Amino acid sequence: MELLLGIDGGGTGCRAALADKAGRILSRGQSGAANIMTDIEGARTSILAATRQALQEAGLRVEAETSISAVLGLAGANVGDNATRLEKLLPFAHAKVKSDATIALHGAIGDTDGTVVILGTGSVFVTRQAGRIRTIGGWGFKVSDLAGGARLGRDLLEETLLAYDGVHLSSPLAEKTMAMFGNDPHRIVSFAHDARPSDFGTYAPLVFEYADKGDRLALLLVEQSLRTIEEALDAIMPPKQDTLCLIGGLGPLYAPRLSPRYRSRLRPPIGDALSGAVRLAVGLFAHAEANHG
Amino acid sequence: MELLLGIDGGGTGCRAALADKAGRILSRGQSGAANIMTDIEGARTSILAATRQALQEAGLRVEAETSISAVLGLAGANVGDNATRLEKLLPFAHAKVKSDATIALHGAIGDTDGTVVILGTGSVFVTRQAGRIRTIGGWGFKVSDLAGGARLGRDLLEETLLAYDGVHLSSPLAEKTMAMFGNDPHRIVSFAHDARPSDFGTYAPLVFEYADKGDRLALLLVEQSLRTIEEALDAIMPPKQDTLCLIGGLGPLYAPRLSPRYRSRLRPPIGDALSGAVRLAVGLFAHAEANHG
Repeated sequence: MELLLGIDGGGTGCRAALADKAGRILSRGQSGAANIMTDIEGARTSILAATRQALQEAGLRVEAETSISAVLGLAGANVGDNATRLEKLLPFAHAKVKSDATIALHGAIGDTDGTVVILGTGSVFVTRQAGRIRTIGGWGFKVSDLAGGARLGRDLLEETLLAYDGVHLSSPLAEKTMAMFGNDPHRIVSFAHDARPSDFGTYAPLVFEYADKGDRLALLLVEQSLRTIEEALDAIMPPKQDTLCLIGGLGPLYAPRLSPRYRSRLRPPIGDALSGAVRLAVGLFAHAEANHG
Repeated sequence: MELLLGIDGGGTGCRAALADKAGRILSRGQSGAANIMTDIEGARTSILAATRQALQEAGLRVEAETSISAVLGLAGANVGDNATRLEKLLPFAHAKVKSDATIALHGAIGDTDGTVVILGTGSVFVTRQAGRIRTIGGWGFKVSDLAGGARLGRDLLEETLLAYDGVHLSSPLAEKTMAMFGNDPHRIVSFAHDARPSDFGTYAPLVFEYADKGDRLALLLVEQSLRTIEEALDAIMPPKQDTLCLIGGLGPLYAPRLSPRYRSRLRPPIGDALSGAVRLAVGLFAHAEANHG
């Protein structure tokens, strides 16, 4: 039996989907972080754990992994020789490592031209024009990813402290945030000291909730973030391209707030990044098998 | 012999100055981090190491520390019961823990009314009006300290990546910064991943250097930071107060760029934070000694 595998992995977890040659998903698995930039051995372990879970769920033995043809979409795949190093470490019959942005693009718009914005904890912009893929942003919370949930949550805490200090006007959202920290600014400082990007990101939905209510601060933060999204789109999306997808947890929250010139080009995504990895595997490996007879 | 001691301690180091009852400095010492928020025992060790170095330099024995009356200015002194806890841990005859902002204020303007802005790796605003001290900002790199060197350096790296991605226009400063990282954006990401606030801060002087040359990006970053400084001054400095000091490594770089309404109130600082701690010790303890005979 020929098996195809899609993997969607990053700093927060790893998901696997096992499929037949036609791309029909047989089973799924998931595991912990697969960060090939900081821990390639740990990434391999997570990838195999998610794969074995999927094999088990499909009623297959671990040994079947040697007949798998896999496409893996991983954050950091385009840095140095991470991708080829990992490919050699895997027990699969074939393995192709792509960037997380590439499988997300393929998942959202298939193999047509278009632009996809991934708005989760971070933010990445990826476009395909005449078959050529280009990515911008996605350099991480500390120096990039301006409209991502982590930045939006962090910005909220900064503004909450500025309101506490009397530097900026307060708002119901700032008061609500202060109250969530027991009205003690030191608790915000202590939270921020240890917070991972995803921890900051937990406050992002609150900003949208208050923006819907017309909160002054919430609207300011969302508009500021939208400006960074549209600036990046101005730089990456060809003016005549007509397909734009906003994906990730915050995608549907930002989408209706885009300017008309981008809102008019919005399309719902075909599928998620994991389905993109599976479909890329069909394209790469199922055809090759067919060619070989 | 009655001894006075001033201590200026924080996350990057601890400085001590030993003085006689008149506040004349006899000797100095320095040691490692004294962060009472994260490591009160380590802070005690650093404070004693700096003190003993100063005692030794003055030709005194360690045992003399029991006759010391000290004022310690420490970051985090105003959080919870840190200050009183540390006071009890010290072997001195008398010890009074104040915030780092308080000794900086006293060092810069003595006991008069006025406003002091500490612009180092972080940024803190402190004012004294009719004897009452108020502090804003200084909540740390992650969610505050907008015009501090760490934020300015981080902002530079973010803008450098936005220029690399073609989202913002480039400039000689952005190109210079890119070149410092071997024109490899991944090296910026990797630096940022591990960078402490003081590491980001090492790039702040470059921003001012290029602002002097009229670099578009440098001017944008400096003006943005100045706006945050003046917003905070608007909130904390009484309109009729006529004494403003900008201290810390970046103080003299920002000062000439302030708007006229603040530039006209600028005064050079009398002394540094450590001298402020010593003068506070004179006020607190030398007078008491005099009263006691």
